[in-house]
Amino acid sequence: MQTIHNINELRAAVKQAKINHPGIRIGFVPTMGFLHKGHASLLEAARRQCDLVILSIFVNPLQFGPNEDFDKYPRNEEGDLAVAKAVGTDIVFLPSVDEMYPQPTKTIITVSQITDRLCGASRPGHFDGVGTIVSKLFNIVQPDAAYFGLKDAQQIAVINQMVNDLNMPVEIVPCPILRESDGLAMSSRNVYLLPEEREQALVLSASLKLAEGLIREQNGEVDVMSLIETLSQTIRQAPLAVIDYVEILAYPSLETVSSLKDTEQIIIALAVKFGKTRLIDNVIIRLK
Amino acid sequence: MQTIHNINELRAAVKQAKINHPGIRIGFVPTMGFLHKGHASLLEAARRQCDLVILSIFVNPLQFGPNEDFDKYPRNEEGDLAVAKAVGTDIVFLPSVDEMYPQPTKTIITVSQITDRLCGASRPGHFDGVGTIVSKLFNIVQPDAAYFGLKDAQQIAVINQMVNDLNMPVEIVPCPILRESDGLAMSSRNVYLLPEEREQALVLSASLKLAEGLIREQNGEVDVMSLIETLSQTIRQAPLAVIDYVEILAYPSLETVSSLKDTEQIIIALAVKFGKTRLIDNVIIRLK
Repeated sequence: MQTIHNINELRAAVKQAKINHPGIRIGFVPTMGFLHKGHASLLEAARRQCDLVILSIFVNPLQFGPNEDFDKYPRNEEGDLAVAKAVGTDIVFLPSVDEMYPQPTKTIITVSQITDRLCGASRPGHFDGVGTIVSKLFNIVQPDAAYFGLKDAQQIAVINQMVNDLNMPVEIVPCPILRESDGLAMSSRNVYLLPEEREQALVLSASLKLAEGLIREQNGEVDVMSLIETLSQTIRQAPLAVIDYVEILAYPSLETVSSLKDTEQIIIALAVKFGKTRLIDNVIIRLK
Repeated sequence: MQTIHNINELRAAVKQAKINHPGIRIGFVPTMGFLHKGHASLLEAARRQCDLVILSIFVNPLQFGPNEDFDKYPRNEEGDLAVAKAVGTDIVFLPSVDEMYPQPTKTIITVSQITDRLCGASRPGHFDGVGTIVSKLFNIVQPDAAYFGLKDAQQIAVINQMVNDLNMPVEIVPCPILRESDGLAMSSRNVYLLPEEREQALVLSASLKLAEGLIREQNGEVDVMSLIETLSQTIRQAPLAVIDYVEILAYPSLETVSSLKDTEQIIIALAVKFGKTRLIDNVIIRLK
């Protein structure tokens, strides 16, 4: 496994691999590090489907708001490299902030509409930062396929829209959410949770399961507004939970749905704060 | 010479060329068609420096304002193909608007600061349209080098900034302005000019030449504001000329310069309307 910090070296390594193995398929897993089993599952998917697997670890300042957790975002390079090696990663790209942004960027990629709701509404500018860094990384790595976890379902929708709109030559592969045995969606931010918060955070996955069950039982004949109300009430039963949003939207367009009847696929998406830690979770349900 | 209208066919042709000739250098000339000798000089430069030369002809609606000349922008496919063939172009890519924008794009690339002045100020949204289409075309063609004319000097500055900020794997090659024998900068829009307008339009190149002469004579010890005033007065001597802007800025940053002494390179840039036709011209002067 090669570890590369420099853009030109990464480009050279990819070029060399293409010369040595013409027609090679390159799989790319962009992350912010502090890898957990969810990330490992993305690398495993890339390993199964591609010849060369490249992982990037970069905590991207551009996608954090001024009052967000950029400085204290958890980092663990040694642990990350062990995870990467265990699943057979070929190259780990670990650029510094100066390497990625030698000057403050004047160029921003904005995806409209899809970013109006959910985390886009709660975190203004967040998806501009995501689109811009993902585009930069794609241009550096030039992968055939890139792997993203569905926990950030809006992120996948935004990136898919960007890739289609800009004709980027890369296939976006969405991968299922990985959960702890008690249901909590895996996240690098789970490490922030105090024991009591960690316990109450189960309300996210539990309420999603409840909502999915109600929709399945009633064959989609559920009133959207009252389902959101049921979800919110369930979450509020955890005394430490402070709801950021509870939404049911069409997926991947993230447009409002008034009735589930005419909708092909929906997402039930939650963002809930426990103390200083903001957690997200979701379930995507195909109705037709 | 191959003529291709479809994105997937273009991708396949490029892929095949890369398989047949590994390590091939691809030169790309994106245009809006109605080709003149200026465009031909870009194709010739690409022909000299690259193995495969691809020309695109696409009048991009996204870079035209609502009151601009998108609908009547001059088109001449037959003439364009003759020009392309004469200079040894390998592939001409002629996509339709539906092919490039099957849905209205939700993704926009914005370059800030560099777009605040000159045509960016006169044509709001113009450079968002330019950045977005150029990025799309780069992602489709995946060229090693792309050729742009310096008549659109701000466009080159914007594209260079975008390419650097987003780490696009393409070299931008700026090419000199081509002029008619009387000095008028070549432009597809010159065809709009009525005979009297055409005659008076010479004031653009003439005033630039005058300004450059004054700077050279006085070794850059020229007051910027009075030079702009001299230029404007010269242009106003043409009764049909309506000035859009006359500016002297640092190039390529396009930042304001108060004195020429501390500036490495400047651009003197003009936009002037004659009747309904808006013409631009410029000269870039290295001072150090």
